[in-house]
Amino acid sequence: MREINICIAGIGNVGSSLIESLEENKNIIENKSSLKINILGISGKNINKKRNFDVSNYKWFDNPLDMTEVKNCDIIIELIGEEKGISFKLIENALNRNIHVVTGNKALIAKNGQYLFKLAEKNNSSLLFEAAVAGGIPIIKVIKNNIFLNSIKKISGILNGTTNFILTKMDNDNLSFQKVLEIAKQKGFTSEQESALDIGGFDAAHKLTILSTLCFGSNLNFENNFVEGIDNIKIEDINFAKKIGYKIKLISEAYIENDKIFNITTPKLIDFNNPLSNVDGVLNAINIETDHLDNLFLEGQGAGGKPTASSVISDIYEISLNPNFNSLGYQYEKLKNFEKFNVSELVNSYYLRIMTIDKPGVLSTITKSFTDSGISVEKILQMPEEENLNKPIPIIITTHKIKKEILQKVIKDIENLDFVMENITILSIHSN
Amino acid sequence: MREINICIAGIGNVGSSLIESLEENKNIIENKSSLKINILGISGKNINKKRNFDVSNYKWFDNPLDMTEVKNCDIIIELIGEEKGISFKLIENALNRNIHVVTGNKALIAKNGQYLFKLAEKNNSSLLFEAAVAGGIPIIKVIKNNIFLNSIKKISGILNGTTNFILTKMDNDNLSFQKVLEIAKQKGFTSEQESALDIGGFDAAHKLTILSTLCFGSNLNFENNFVEGIDNIKIEDINFAKKIGYKIKLISEAYIENDKIFNITTPKLIDFNNPLSNVDGVLNAINIETDHLDNLFLEGQGAGGKPTASSVISDIYEISLNPNFNSLGYQYEKLKNFEKFNVSELVNSYYLRIMTIDKPGVLSTITKSFTDSGISVEKILQMPEEENLNKPIPIIITTHKIKKEILQKVIKDIENLDFVMENITILSIHSN
Repeated sequence: MREINICIAGIGNVGSSLIESLEENKNIIENKSSLKINILGISGKNINKKRNFDVSNYKWFDNPLDMTEVKNCDIIIELIGEEKGISFKLIENALNRNIHVVTGNKALIAKNGQYLFKLAEKNNSSLLFEAAVAGGIPIIKVIKNNIFLNSIKKISGILNGTTNFILTKMDNDNLSFQKVLEIAKQKGFTSEQESALDIGGFDAAHKLTILSTLCFGSNLNFENNFVEGIDNIKIEDINFAKKIGYKIKLISEAYIENDKIFNITTPKLIDFNNPLSNVDGVLNAINIETDHLDNLFLEGQGAGGKPTASSVISDIYEISLNPNFNSLGYQYEKLKNFEKFNVSELVNSYYLRIMTIDKPGVLSTITKSFTDSGISVEKILQMPEEENLNKPIPIIITTHKIKKEILQKVIKDIENLDFVMENITILSIHSN
Repeated sequence: MREINICIAGIGNVGSSLIESLEENKNIIENKSSLKINILGISGKNINKKRNFDVSNYKWFDNPLDMTEVKNCDIIIELIGEEKGISFKLIENALNRNIHVVTGNKALIAKNGQYLFKLAEKNNSSLLFEAAVAGGIPIIKVIKNNIFLNSIKKISGILNGTTNFILTKMDNDNLSFQKVLEIAKQKGFTSEQESALDIGGFDAAHKLTILSTLCFGSNLNFENNFVEGIDNIKIEDINFAKKIGYKIKLISEAYIENDKIFNITTPKLIDFNNPLSNVDGVLNAINIETDHLDNLFLEGQGAGGKPTASSVISDIYEISLNPNFNSLGYQYEKLKNFEKFNVSELVNSYYLRIMTIDKPGVLSTITKSFTDSGISVEKILQMPEEENLNKPIPIIITTHKIKKEILQKVIKDIENLDFVMENITILSIHSN
């Protein structure tokens, strides 16, 4: 029987599920893999907190850093989750002592991973992070081990469960963003503290940064991201989008074009035929396009103790099989710096909602502005909601592909027209 | 730069795509993995056939068995595809000479794999087969490397693209099975020879046999399968199913219950809310349920040269990283023999179409038969299609879960009633 010794730092939702699973599945694990996983130490905030396992079965450390001194510890599992601070220090210390590290810490990897992966490679240690992206979906290993020698064209996905829950709930129950945000907080999907990262799109962008490095060998650089959140999404737009065959989802996507890196997280209209449009609630999903595969689509639970613990265990297993894998697939020195794309040069189809007074000539004036700027209109819908002539009515327009800076110029002109009553809502349409 | 030497037997669609990709992506592969893949020999039926690469760049072998004598050959790629015969002999010879083998041959693995995996283990060689199941979807490695230490509850999927194309096309264009089968043959999705395997469900059952072994550590035993094909699926049933919220798909599923192995391939009604119902055309998809993951869903191209070659390359890469992986995840001696389930004991919900004369009392007589047998009816739809009283009308019934043998007894009784005009159509409903 092979053995591997681990210490676990951070006994929250994921840490507890991990310990519980290693206890419950001890026989399954040993039978399947001939591997005995020994927990040599655990460290959490409070030894006296009620937990789903018996703390007294394990050696407790008040200071997680002390666990790097434990004799014969093969792997430190970092589940504290600080963007830098103690999490960074712990990982750094462990790697310097040739101890492998498994973490679920996306912010840390996205923002401070560059230094740590170099350190891991220097010390012939692994720094694995399957749990950092999309919870139980094994997306890191699928890219790194399974399609790695494809030429990867594009990765796009729904990487944040909280925002996807909010958008789904707004859609299903015809509720406003604010109302659903409150429900999400009540359900514990997001806290006051987390919600800025979730809602603002930053959590998804952290994950996209990591995926982008795996797919394209780009340096881990969070600054490459263009990020828009969902706090401006109106229930009206969700409903209008549905009428023309789209759902609104927070989509993260990455690709390389003309040697520039495009890392974009933004709410987009997704065609009903795209499998991403069927991903509802807290689920995550990822679609990959390569020279070999038109699409490879993965969907599953993107968060939660049990699913995320599954990813941590898969990293322990990977290290037990072969500690000499490159943590990123690439050797560190192969990582490249790509120039960041320029947002104004983005080419996209767009959805526009223009609120106007209902009077003759409005539609022709607006469409003329588009035509004059060379913007090709795909669909126009004028939908007076009720018989109230004093209320502005929405005109919904979808465009063919156009550079964003050209669109923005026309939008400004149209917003200046005296019958346009509000700022125009602009949303990108995802091309399949 | 690490190097790995391969010989390729079988230069059909997949073999050609493999060679083309290794040529085109030479730089990508070397840059990403620091791995040089050298082709030391190729073998096909006809050296003079027009191909998408220059045959004269490679050493040609008329007899693929001779490639096992090639000095320094690390891996034989078997893409000939015979269920036994030369494919078996080649793999056996290679393993006996400590040469690793990569194959896409599902029938061979499902029917003769047991002996070959034992041989591979004895010779410390790998026998990898990512390409044997679901083309470009990396399902083998996801099970073997990523969720292996989960307790896997159930795997279900759409594993045959041809039958899925046929069912989708029948649905979309309101065509009969025979009509669409002709179209599938014209499109080259299936041949006269292959179509018995495809349509009959046997190709899917081969793949399910392999997945089942990976998930549950069962001996590779094709005899464990219960297989029904799609040749009896009527367009009427596709249309009626749609009216009550289901699509009909050929579903392969495997699980262990009371220490018995359930390997079932059969057409089933899939609820619109199940992601498998959105898998259309030639796509494949697989859903896995474990103790950690409510569902992990993968969708992609299940066949074709390029996608399947991607899986072959991933196996070459895996061997280059670590030739000591267990080919099946499990050590050979850990594989277990499970007793096969008894079909009559299957518990399922069912869809029934009963063709009757439209006269008073029919519905109450039928429902009474169900009630008397303890079968709980979920939905009843009586749908006279036109005003033709002489034509039998369909009664559609869905049941709650019931043992198949109990259902079959009632069905027999109802079929004997004088107003029932045809044998009753019975289809299983997939529980989410």
